[in-house]
Amino acid sequence: MKILLKNCLVLQAGGKTVTAAGGLNIVVHNSIIEYIGKEIPDERFDSVKDMSGKLLMPGLYNCHTHSSMVLLRGVGSGLPLNDWLFKAIFPVEDKLTEDDIKAGSELAALEMISGGTVSFSDMYFFPKKTAEVVLESGMKANICRPVQSFDPDEKPENCYRIAESEALFKEYNGAGDGRLLVDFCVHAEYTCNPQVVRAYSEICRNYNGNMHIHLAETEKEQRECIEKYGVTPAKWFDSLGAFDSDAFAAHCVVLTEEDAEILKNRGVSIVHNPTSNMKLGSGFAPISRYMDMGMNIALGTDGAASNNNLDMFEEMHLASVIHNGFMRNATAVNASEIINAATVNGAKVQRRAKCGKIAEGYRADIIALSLDTPHMQPCLDPVSSVVYSAQASDVCLTMCDGKILYENGEFLTLDKERIMFDVKKSVKRLYK
Amino acid sequence: MKILLKNCLVLQAGGKTVTAAGGLNIVVHNSIIEYIGKEIPDERFDSVKDMSGKLLMPGLYNCHTHSSMVLLRGVGSGLPLNDWLFKAIFPVEDKLTEDDIKAGSELAALEMISGGTVSFSDMYFFPKKTAEVVLESGMKANICRPVQSFDPDEKPENCYRIAESEALFKEYNGAGDGRLLVDFCVHAEYTCNPQVVRAYSEICRNYNGNMHIHLAETEKEQRECIEKYGVTPAKWFDSLGAFDSDAFAAHCVVLTEEDAEILKNRGVSIVHNPTSNMKLGSGFAPISRYMDMGMNIALGTDGAASNNNLDMFEEMHLASVIHNGFMRNATAVNASEIINAATVNGAKVQRRAKCGKIAEGYRADIIALSLDTPHMQPCLDPVSSVVYSAQASDVCLTMCDGKILYENGEFLTLDKERIMFDVKKSVKRLYK
Repeated sequence: MKILLKNCLVLQAGGKTVTAAGGLNIVVHNSIIEYIGKEIPDERFDSVKDMSGKLLMPGLYNCHTHSSMVLLRGVGSGLPLNDWLFKAIFPVEDKLTEDDIKAGSELAALEMISGGTVSFSDMYFFPKKTAEVVLESGMKANICRPVQSFDPDEKPENCYRIAESEALFKEYNGAGDGRLLVDFCVHAEYTCNPQVVRAYSEICRNYNGNMHIHLAETEKEQRECIEKYGVTPAKWFDSLGAFDSDAFAAHCVVLTEEDAEILKNRGVSIVHNPTSNMKLGSGFAPISRYMDMGMNIALGTDGAASNNNLDMFEEMHLASVIHNGFMRNATAVNASEIINAATVNGAKVQRRAKCGKIAEGYRADIIALSLDTPHMQPCLDPVSSVVYSAQASDVCLTMCDGKILYENGEFLTLDKERIMFDVKKSVKRLYK
Repeated sequence: MKILLKNCLVLQAGGKTVTAAGGLNIVVHNSIIEYIGKEIPDERFDSVKDMSGKLLMPGLYNCHTHSSMVLLRGVGSGLPLNDWLFKAIFPVEDKLTEDDIKAGSELAALEMISGGTVSFSDMYFFPKKTAEVVLESGMKANICRPVQSFDPDEKPENCYRIAESEALFKEYNGAGDGRLLVDFCVHAEYTCNPQVVRAYSEICRNYNGNMHIHLAETEKEQRECIEKYGVTPAKWFDSLGAFDSDAFAAHCVVLTEEDAEILKNRGVSIVHNPTSNMKLGSGFAPISRYMDMGMNIALGTDGAASNNNLDMFEEMHLASVIHNGFMRNATAVNASEIINAATVNGAKVQRRAKCGKIAEGYRADIIALSLDTPHMQPCLDPVSSVVYSAQASDVCLTMCDGKILYENGEFLTLDKERIMFDVKKSVKRLYK
């Protein structure tokens, strides 16, 4: 399969300054970007698309979410964090079945695909159901079976979640021509005992795994960990070997300077979730400082119960303005850094080689934004247009691994009507 | 002209808690909402629309913008405020002609109408051109001729801008069946001498006018005013009579407690512009505190040069999460307050009676959001969906004074293609 994209204006992510170049032609051969240049190669194409009036950029990476929580969109909105979690969220989660997770993952896939997200790092129940949806949808994802161990005396060998995590890895890691990867996951410090974290971290290391963790989301978490163990969650995880593998930590709102140094030295990536952290009143990660330290910063929406959507354009927008506002410095975080966070840095978090850029030899994960809307005109500075002006709805093409998943409002791999029907069924049962 | 809107799910703004009610039928008679109820009145309608699967809410009020600055969208993005203003913005503004303002106002009208904004408070050059566009488009707006007086010795009688402001008021206030209102406007403390402010404020009072002011946007403005006059800008304006009329102040980022008390006591409304203030590194207005004081808080996008769009959904979203994040309190600002800020409170700023709510006897300023998108499903809490989940692109109907301006992607009063052509012409000349 060869696709020619003609007359492309392309955002070139990955550099210190993201730039845009026009008049380019792109040849996608199966899943790979084979050629980018001013000339059109003299060969036969299965499909030719004129991309005039559109802006192409790498597909977006949502590096921390609980995708099927879209079924809980808006539940308990406005409640304080603890009431939100214990009174609103947990009672619904308690009723979730495999079928719900399937429907929720599909709804999330529709939302992400139509908003330009090509890959996500997921952490939720029944991950096999999400895996099926990922494979069917044509998206990429890093899924995991989160390990929790609420009983302080539980032994690792009795923790069935560890066994499930290992089994998930063996069954699905690398499926779909590598579109599906399986990460390891300690849910959080406050939901796991130390012996389980230690043993599980060793397993992760043995598989050369990638560890996904909730870290330092709230003052409460930080304070209670210090009360319990005498150290911060970051130090606690480090001492138990959780950062001995590749690892990425969502939130990182309340890290101490020493915590940040630990993460930096261990090469742990940070996933910034500004909407969720701010909406729940937790604060926000000072990514400007982390970027200055040279850490890898990616973006995530968190779940739709605390966001309340999976819109990476909204997340880019928020991440691009809040730090300037809080630091009273118009140059604290710039648009290029935010585009990199949402693309190449995310690919790095997910350990995906040759992903996150539009470049020859890279995976063809390309999205196009229509510029034919009032709010995208004039497009004097495409980088700034993407970060500050665009909406997710501007996405008119989503291609993942060379396959078109969405074009001009149509989903090409998923049946929107059937999914909406299944979602209604789940919602009816969950909230009856 | 009678329009029946059937099967409506309606957000009821204006109360302490905004609620939603379904199964309603709405009769719009000319410019007025004549009836809302469960029954369908037995009469003849010129048009009947089934609103199933949509969410209706009052049209949005953008209470501080410089609409035709859409022509400068993205210019100087990422520069520090002073460089942005002096090196990037002013040189382009210097070239703006009446034709540019026409094209810019039209582009802004397209963006606002398609994003659910029915009315805006504008402050920019050549306001007559914007007035023409407002009248043509079917929108509402409060326009003004901003008064500046850079020469500290300039006398009011020599300030031609005052004369122009008065003339604008006489010519246009109340035009288009009241859709167009003309406000008075002192641009800012740092661009006006005191004798001009004093004299102009008296003129405003004599006309029973409404005063639009930039106030306390930056630390620098506050500090330099104190150095120059020994008082803050708020006290300075108050002492010169600027708040003797109805008045509204944009920004209010760095008010002292005493300043806030003055504004409260003088009944001055505050227009919160979170994106612009944060993006430019100025900070943000602590609206949670002002709301607790009982002040009238509305929302604005500011100009697209510092935003970089006129998207009131983005503004609602930002205003709804940043205060919670900054104050580390999930209940600092709630969704109902934000919907009221964007609707009824804005109508109050613009001194528009019977506007900003969907209620019998009110002006028919109604927008509908499609719920048939993945990110709006499930819609368990419509209030929360509007503030936290929606995008401007969800707007599928914009009605102002009973006239449909936009429906399912089509503009019914403006010629998008012709406007886009004119915009390109202006842009080419401005940036050649």
